[in-house]
Amino acid sequence: MSFEITKELLQTVSSHVEVSNDVALSSLFQDMHHADIAEVLDEISFDEAVYIIKLLDSQTTSEVLMDLDVDIREKILRNLSAKEIADEVLELDTDDAADIIGELPEERQEAVISQIEDEEHAKEIEELLTYEDYTAGSLMAKELVKVNENWTVTKCVREMRVQAEEVTRVHSIYVVNDQGKLKGRLSLKDLLVAPARAHIADVYIPKVDFVKVNDDLDEVSNIMRKYDLEAIPVVDENDILLGRITIDDMVDVIKEEADKDYQLAAGLMDDVEADDTIFELTKARLPWLILGLFGGLGSVLIMEGFESAMNNYKELFFFTPLIAAMAGNVGVQSSAIIVQGLANDTVKGSLFNRLLKEIGLSLINGVVLGVILIAVGPLMGLQSQFSLTISISMLCVIIVASLVGTFVPIVLDRRGIDPAIATGPFITTSNDIFGIFLFFVIAKAILVF
Amino acid sequence: MSFEITKELLQTVSSHVEVSNDVALSSLFQDMHHADIAEVLDEISFDEAVYIIKLLDSQTTSEVLMDLDVDIREKILRNLSAKEIADEVLELDTDDAADIIGELPEERQEAVISQIEDEEHAKEIEELLTYEDYTAGSLMAKELVKVNENWTVTKCVREMRVQAEEVTRVHSIYVVNDQGKLKGRLSLKDLLVAPARAHIADVYIPKVDFVKVNDDLDEVSNIMRKYDLEAIPVVDENDILLGRITIDDMVDVIKEEADKDYQLAAGLMDDVEADDTIFELTKARLPWLILGLFGGLGSVLIMEGFESAMNNYKELFFFTPLIAAMAGNVGVQSSAIIVQGLANDTVKGSLFNRLLKEIGLSLINGVVLGVILIAVGPLMGLQSQFSLTISISMLCVIIVASLVGTFVPIVLDRRGIDPAIATGPFITTSNDIFGIFLFFVIAKAILVF
Repeated sequence: MSFEITKELLQTVSSHVEVSNDVALSSLFQDMHHADIAEVLDEISFDEAVYIIKLLDSQTTSEVLMDLDVDIREKILRNLSAKEIADEVLELDTDDAADIIGELPEERQEAVISQIEDEEHAKEIEELLTYEDYTAGSLMAKELVKVNENWTVTKCVREMRVQAEEVTRVHSIYVVNDQGKLKGRLSLKDLLVAPARAHIADVYIPKVDFVKVNDDLDEVSNIMRKYDLEAIPVVDENDILLGRITIDDMVDVIKEEADKDYQLAAGLMDDVEADDTIFELTKARLPWLILGLFGGLGSVLIMEGFESAMNNYKELFFFTPLIAAMAGNVGVQSSAIIVQGLANDTVKGSLFNRLLKEIGLSLINGVVLGVILIAVGPLMGLQSQFSLTISISMLCVIIVASLVGTFVPIVLDRRGIDPAIATGPFITTSNDIFGIFLFFVIAKAILVF
Repeated sequence: MSFEITKELLQTVSSHVEVSNDVALSSLFQDMHHADIAEVLDEISFDEAVYIIKLLDSQTTSEVLMDLDVDIREKILRNLSAKEIADEVLELDTDDAADIIGELPEERQEAVISQIEDEEHAKEIEELLTYEDYTAGSLMAKELVKVNENWTVTKCVREMRVQAEEVTRVHSIYVVNDQGKLKGRLSLKDLLVAPARAHIADVYIPKVDFVKVNDDLDEVSNIMRKYDLEAIPVVDENDILLGRITIDDMVDVIKEEADKDYQLAAGLMDDVEADDTIFELTKARLPWLILGLFGGLGSVLIMEGFESAMNNYKELFFFTPLIAAMAGNVGVQSSAIIVQGLANDTVKGSLFNRLLKEIGLSLINGVVLGVILIAVGPLMGLQSQFSLTISISMLCVIIVASLVGTFVPIVLDRRGIDPAIATGPFITTSNDIFGIFLFFVIAKAILVF
């Protein structure tokens, strides 16, 4: 059943646009889901996309806009007047509207908001724009169904009908007091079986999961996943109900964050896809490679400093890629575990215990690897004293690399920096240089050259 | 509002268990969410956990079981009789029941299923166990609300009441024909405003998203995210409605897959967490490190083969970590983009075009890095001929590494192997060896040693 973009479809669209066959285009897009239309627009030329956007009705356009690739959306918005954008935004839920307006340059934001015809909608969007990135407030929508605990069931049903018209999916009915404080929730079932004159206060469920407006989205995601929630209300520091977050938006965040962390670990900046242009891909890849280049040049300088060892211990230089690889791998392993643990909130206990654990872990890994090396050494024609030296140096390098990999993300996290940047090339490169240096220092101390 | 496990709480639980204070324990856990109880049980001793499991009522126990860490659940299930497990399973939805039974050793599976008191439930669980891992069938539940297109609205409402009792959350009402084929869906709203004697065939929405039972979960996830679905029906090859997948289960899959890919990219086997034991962490980390060790020893052998170059071109050996790092980084970047593209279904176009693109991309990156190297070379005392040689070799290494990184995941994917294993240490290690070899071969051809 899944929608597939075919070459034929794209050609049909293009040829209809060329001859301005609006009737054919309208009937083609009429039954198409907005996400599918957005996919088509992502693939055709920009002028064609603009032509179609202007042809579609306002409700469809606004939903298509939300689903477009961010760079194409940006280009299209640049071609629309503030009034035109304001009209699109009017059709959207507050969270989507705030997302679109948030992408505009600051001076246009105000222009668009002032043109939104529904004053309350405009005010709600303005409120949403004030919340910091990656907090509950930045993801929530103002649309929700809320009832007062002092209402009767009859009044509640009447009010709910009005509210529900604006809410795409009613997950829960939230109960508030006169001050707007979140008190609990109401199930539709309970409402239907309750006597008409009963008060909400008598029938609502006082237990409700919620998050604070400044909570980190990682935390919101953990709570929603743990309790299998499809929506969660958001309150301010006085427990006033401000909005709600729905699972479909949370899924997008979870997926985006996972992709981003994965890309950072793999040495990619920006959010790139296989089908992006060579220029975009280069922009994502080259910075880390340049970092790696300078890291490699650092290793060259270190080895030049130990050049004198080349006369008697030239094999040491053959082992540098091995040492660098170990330092890099161990560092990435350690940092990846910590980065995931920080995101999933499973890093508990004191720093000192974590230090002991990492050292213990590195000792085990290092000793096993050292024993393998000593066992394999004779087959490669290495003297046992030499194998032992390399094993000891390697052990030290592994311990230090794992400590760096563990503590850099923790320090970054405590300073409010995304610890994920500490994975991938950053940790690999610094561990490469540091590992090679340590390796020669220790080898020099043992072999005395 | 978030639940926090405190030392005090764990101590209270332990001391209550010690003196068998069942009353205190019951009241402590009474209002606790099953996911929170599971968290507590994950932290206390196994015997204490079993004690509490046996104390809780059957409905709670079964839900707590689902939320436990898989290894603790396994241990607890080993301590329960087939009958006891069957009774727990009876309380669970079919998908959760199948998950639990699927974890048991094969001979126990049958024993448990034969003891389930509800025959239909048992049959449905058996059906779910037949679907392959990571297909729509493996994640779906049999519980759903379905109505026949030939029913009247009145009959429909009556039947729905019965069905809805077994379904935790009704997302959609699915409409089938007499043969059980999925025809469409029904909104509660439409049902409420339809005349009582109308037939469902006149009021249902014939457009409905669905997936096939053998569809890959990546595909299901892409469809649910694209169309913001909270549930999707699953049909067999004849469009017979078999079950449905809900977003909360899909979220868990998305998160698990993302974590797994991330861990593979970071060189971790198994699903480990920061707070796992040193033994578990070693099991996850050591295999890749051993691979890296042998990769490094491979590089040693290659360099021994080019030892004669040491007299005149000893600097070549200083550059091996740089070359290895470049080959590794480029390979991981390329493979990560492809692995993500395969999962998100954005890898389109012919292999040949992809080949050209990767070569173009590598040329740009390689030339930029080469120019930087040539510019920096004199500062490091390198002769220009030597800098040029290294730049050319590095360029070739980058091109080959990016091709390996691109095509290994594609080949694995076409053979039905998870391409994510091609990221991380696997690609790094092979590219390290291959890169160093290529580097020396090209340098030898240019410098003639």
